[in-house]
Amino acid sequence: MQLTADGKLKHFLTVEGLPPLLLEEILDRAQQFVSLPNKAQVQAPLLRGKTVMNLFFENSTRTRTTFELAAKRLSADLINLDIRNSATTKGESLLDTIRNLEAMGCDMFVVRHPSSGAANFIARYCAPHISVLNAGDGKHAHPTQAMLDMLTIRQQKGDFTPLKIAIVGDIKHSRVARSQIHALTTLCAGEIRLIAPKTLIPEGIEKMGVSLYTEIEEGIKDVDVVIMLRLQHERMKSALLPSVREYYARYGLTEERLKLAKPDAIVMHPGPVNRGVEIDSHVADGPQSVILQQVTNGIAVRMAVMSMVIGTRAQGDDA
Amino acid sequence: MQLTADGKLKHFLTVEGLPPLLLEEILDRAQQFVSLPNKAQVQAPLLRGKTVMNLFFENSTRTRTTFELAAKRLSADLINLDIRNSATTKGESLLDTIRNLEAMGCDMFVVRHPSSGAANFIARYCAPHISVLNAGDGKHAHPTQAMLDMLTIRQQKGDFTPLKIAIVGDIKHSRVARSQIHALTTLCAGEIRLIAPKTLIPEGIEKMGVSLYTEIEEGIKDVDVVIMLRLQHERMKSALLPSVREYYARYGLTEERLKLAKPDAIVMHPGPVNRGVEIDSHVADGPQSVILQQVTNGIAVRMAVMSMVIGTRAQGDDA
Amino acid sequence: MQLTADGKLKHFLTVEGLPPLLLEEILDRAQQFVSLPNKAQVQAPLLRGKTVMNLFFENSTRTRTTFELAAKRLSADLINLDIRNSATTKGESLLDTIRNLEAMGCDMFVVRHPSSGAANFIARYCAPHISVLNAGDGKHAHPTQAMLDMLTIRQQKGDFTPLKIAIVGDIKHSRVARSQIHALTTLCAGEIRLIAPKTLIPEGIEKMGVSLYTEIEEGIKDVDVVIMLRLQHERMKSALLPSVREYYARYGLTEERLKLAKPDAIVMHPGPVNRGVEIDSHVADGPQSVILQQVTNGIAVRMAVMSMVIGTRAQGDDA
Repeated sequence: MQLTADGKLKHFLTVEGLPPLLLEEILDRAQQFVSLPNKAQVQAPLLRGKTVMNLFFENSTRTRTTFELAAKRLSADLINLDIRNSATTKGESLLDTIRNLEAMGCDMFVVRHPSSGAANFIARYCAPHISVLNAGDGKHAHPTQAMLDMLTIRQQKGDFTPLKIAIVGDIKHSRVARSQIHALTTLCAGEIRLIAPKTLIPEGIEKMGVSLYTEIEEGIKDVDVVIMLRLQHERMKSALLPSVREYYARYGLTEERLKLAKPDAIVMHPGPVNRGVEIDSHVADGPQSVILQQVTNGIAVRMAVMSMVIGTRAQGDDA
Repeated sequence: MQLTADGKLKHFLTVEGLPPLLLEEILDRAQQFVSLPNKAQVQAPLLRGKTVMNLFFENSTRTRTTFELAAKRLSADLINLDIRNSATTKGESLLDTIRNLEAMGCDMFVVRHPSSGAANFIARYCAPHISVLNAGDGKHAHPTQAMLDMLTIRQQKGDFTPLKIAIVGDIKHSRVARSQIHALTTLCAGEIRLIAPKTLIPEGIEKMGVSLYTEIEEGIKDVDVVIMLRLQHERMKSALLPSVREYYARYGLTEERLKLAKPDAIVMHPGPVNRGVEIDSHVADGPQSVILQQVTNGIAVRMAVMSMVIGTRAQGDDA
Repeated sequence: MQLTADGKLKHFLTVEGLPPLLLEEILDRAQQFVSLPNKAQVQAPLLRGKTVMNLFFENSTRTRTTFELAAKRLSADLINLDIRNSATTKGESLLDTIRNLEAMGCDMFVVRHPSSGAANFIARYCAPHISVLNAGDGKHAHPTQAMLDMLTIRQQKGDFTPLKIAIVGDIKHSRVARSQIHALTTLCAGEIRLIAPKTLIPEGIEKMGVSLYTEIEEGIKDVDVVIMLRLQHERMKSALLPSVREYYARYGLTEERLKLAKPDAIVMHPGPVNRGVEIDSHVADGPQSVILQQVTNGIAVRMAVMSMVIGTRAQGDDA
């Protein structure tokens, strides 16, 4: 559904099922925006005259801001919809809201929603000239996050095929992990290891071609990339975890544990970091951490995706 | 008060009393913006360097967003004032707030306020180079809504003089209805019918040259246009109405009732729609509904009005 | 810390310690923006391609809006961070927030914070290419407010050296007063008088070269400029003041008291004005009041400072 008849990116809802060449096109374009952040803005007003609407049904200042910056740097008109105070919450259906925003001349929706499938639903039912970007839906997918992670890995390591990559933490509830696994698989990463307590590993995940580890010391051994996941606060209080202290004792990324990885291994985290919960402060701020590079890449990847989907609009839409 | 000495639009506070030619100029300009939405934006930065401030003392994400889009598409700097958290609510008077915003170099205020006359008050006391657009004041007026409705009717039906138009619902508390009646009268609509329970018809309204109906089946007969009003939630609970169920039973626009109108009659609604309260879902989404076209026209009408009032600024204001 | 090695303005954290020539450069630039508000915007997109972020940890619609307008009129991309709902309040440290915003390509932070020293802290630890503008930190400083006051005085009175200037009100808790005193001292104002009840005069303030008065009738005599401070609501209820009524009786600026100043004395106030608390309405709106001129100058001063600090970015930052 997210591709046009001739295979161009129309929506960006999930990494799953996209061809490797398309992921590489996203990375190549994003790399250009990273290299020329300000010049790109001045020289390439690719979204001038276009209207991008942020529909965040779930609060996320950080992600919303990066999409807002990406849109503005491409010269789009960006509207942050105060969706919690809008008619939707007053009984209007999601579909009515979408129809109305379409009628206002919207060209692109950026959707974050607590329910898996919300972005797909909107993409399925919105007008044909509109593109939908998934900014995280329930436990399903967070494709721009995965692609910024891929860009960061490629910048640091080059080719994906020889890499051993560990993803550590609450795999079960993580749309980020799911999208990362799809992206890494598509890009032919050498080995993907998931490290988590059994309660936080979803059933059947090994079918995705990953190997499972319940001991971080074992799973992290000789990897090139360590991707830490954020432990959600609501999870910390749940029965799935004994205690934050014990979680850190068993799975926290400390300097000692990081030494088990390759000497030049990089450390990633989607942010915001819970220092002392899933990662030690010295590691988060240490020389192997590329966490802030991920943030920078996040804007470039969002600019890349925005500029790609806008190019697929039917000819004559502006006529 | 809303015209300059030479008859140009200076403020847009109410449709009442404006000459037909001026309403037609608004419609003509808006039609241009509808036809060339993106090109207009690129080619006509008519408000570049101008500052438009949204002063919404009453919440309305939808209306606020359309004014925001209209301003941005004309290249204005748009400020959404968080007026509920601002100094006004901390004891500063409305006039002090206005004086301060003027001093910040504001060129245009878009005002929504729960009190009738608020936009007029601001227009009367603000600096002479500033224009005020009324985005709805109490039960008084909502002139841009009325003009977007007129544009929709003209697009669908052409000339107003032969048309029979029914307005159905809570006429008594509706600023929308009041502005529609003024606009239709000025544009020489053939016949204006108001359909409502007696408790929701204001006294003396027949002086406006309208005919009154308490039975929808009677009033809707052979009309060219059916304009449904939104039933406000606070009204649903009041003693003026028996119950939502009974209201729908007597006044809801169903497919059966719509058949009593002309076969090519159009159905309008200012939104957001209460499905199953004032209108049946099949009618709202049916082939005769032009509800979403109204939304699109809303932005064009607001762009038209903004571009007209900015042209009346005294020469040399920018010197 | 706020100057570069060659003495250019890098951050604007406090007026204290800045050389007179630099303050005059701010005033000269701001004067240009006042004279050509719209043309300046069109002709001088000095911040095009730059990202300015408003970090307001303390609510102030008015100040935030003036910084937003200043940034937009210089063609910057302006982001209002909803800092209260962001990750910071969810346990992320201020430094983590700053690091993340830097990584998003921010060029300038505008910081308001209830704690003295917050802007300095951010300036000390942020990336070297970023500039920080203090929009008020605790009781410490509010340098752009002080400079807009200086611009207003200079426009009205020209040279500072012969002037007698009275600052009236809650000196003790006022960052505005502190910055004004530094600016006036640096610009060689003839005489600075502080007028307040003893409980609202900070200890040791006379070391700043000011004279103290507890009677307004005495302190205001023959001054050229009367600067009223806003009485904070929380102060009104505190033990430091007998009652609002009594405060007004002893320190409120009435028309009678203003007659004790020079006949052409000007009256200033940072706003929002508490009418009938620190100042009489007739005085606030009277011919000697320049309160609204201060507001206009506020935007010009902020544009001036923004355009100065952006010029100090290391060569090649954009390459």
